Amino acid sequence: MDCSVARSLDVVGEWWTLLVVRELMQGHDRFEVIQTDLGIARNILSDRLNTLVAHGVAERVKYHDHPERFEYHLTEKGRDLFPVIVALMGWGDRWAAVDGPPAEVRHECPGHGEPVLVCSACGQPLALHDVRIIGRHAVPA
Amino acid sequence: MDCSVARSLDVVGEWWTLLVVRELMQGHDRFEVIQTDLGIARNILSDRLNTLVAHGVAERVKYHDHPERFEYHLTEKGRDLFPVIVALMGWGDRWAAVDGPPAEVRHECPGHGEPVLVCSACGQPLALHDVRIIGRHAVPA
Repeated sequence: MDCSVARSLDVVGEWWTLLVVRELMQGHDRFEVIQTDLGIARNILSDRLNTLVAHGVAERVKYHDHPERFEYHLTEKGRDLFPVIVALMGWGDRWAAVDGPPAEVRHECPGHGEPVLVCSACGQPLALHDVRIIGRHAVPA
Repeated sequence: MDCSVARSLDVVGEWWTLLVVRELMQGHDRFEVIQTDLGIARNILSDRLNTLVAHGVAERVKYHDHPERFEYHLTEKGRDLFPVIVALMGWGDRWAAVDGPPAEVRHECPGHGEPVLVCSACGQPLALHDVRIIGRHAVPA
């Protein structure tokens, strides 16, 4: 399918995968920590981490020699999933967080702003009814 | 799990679900059209649409009486998944689109800008290393 949403889901669309990415974004980079945080079966976590490494989203880094111990770091490709995680957090906050948002994403600037999706040209916040989705061979009206 | 990413994935985390949402965002609102576009098995599409309706992400609207025919419209909750779709499109465009982006999202303003994630306070584009993820009971530094 010639669709970037589908291609993204091919890599990160399995249940647990984006939650593992979220853990890595928070600096939780060791198997035992992630496993405890998520309450995920060890074989499934192992499988999801292997998938992330195979797709170049994360890399496996040795941090101890005897015995050998590894941790997982996001690559540039993995860190670039930040807008996906932010979007899923925002939607869950607005539509499913019965007790209010469990966590906040704040910019390290004096105003401690939150992420917001805007137009690169005019700076207005964007929603679905403000945009056109244009196929490759079409041109903007 | 007290996590808005997890709560979002509970609703839209099954394979196909976000692709169905993408179809509805493009105005492809009838079963046969979506089924042809996605090349998805009818029973799976039926299941995913029922899930979206059950969670209030889409609604089933009758558009013909004899015989009865229905189409699916996104609710406000469904239209609010726009940032999730935009984020997955963007990541797929950057990391998996071998022939360039198959589609573009453009604002209906004179500059035809693209969606970009910025800070609500200072307006700077945001990436993972620019932010802190803060748990509910912590305060910004």
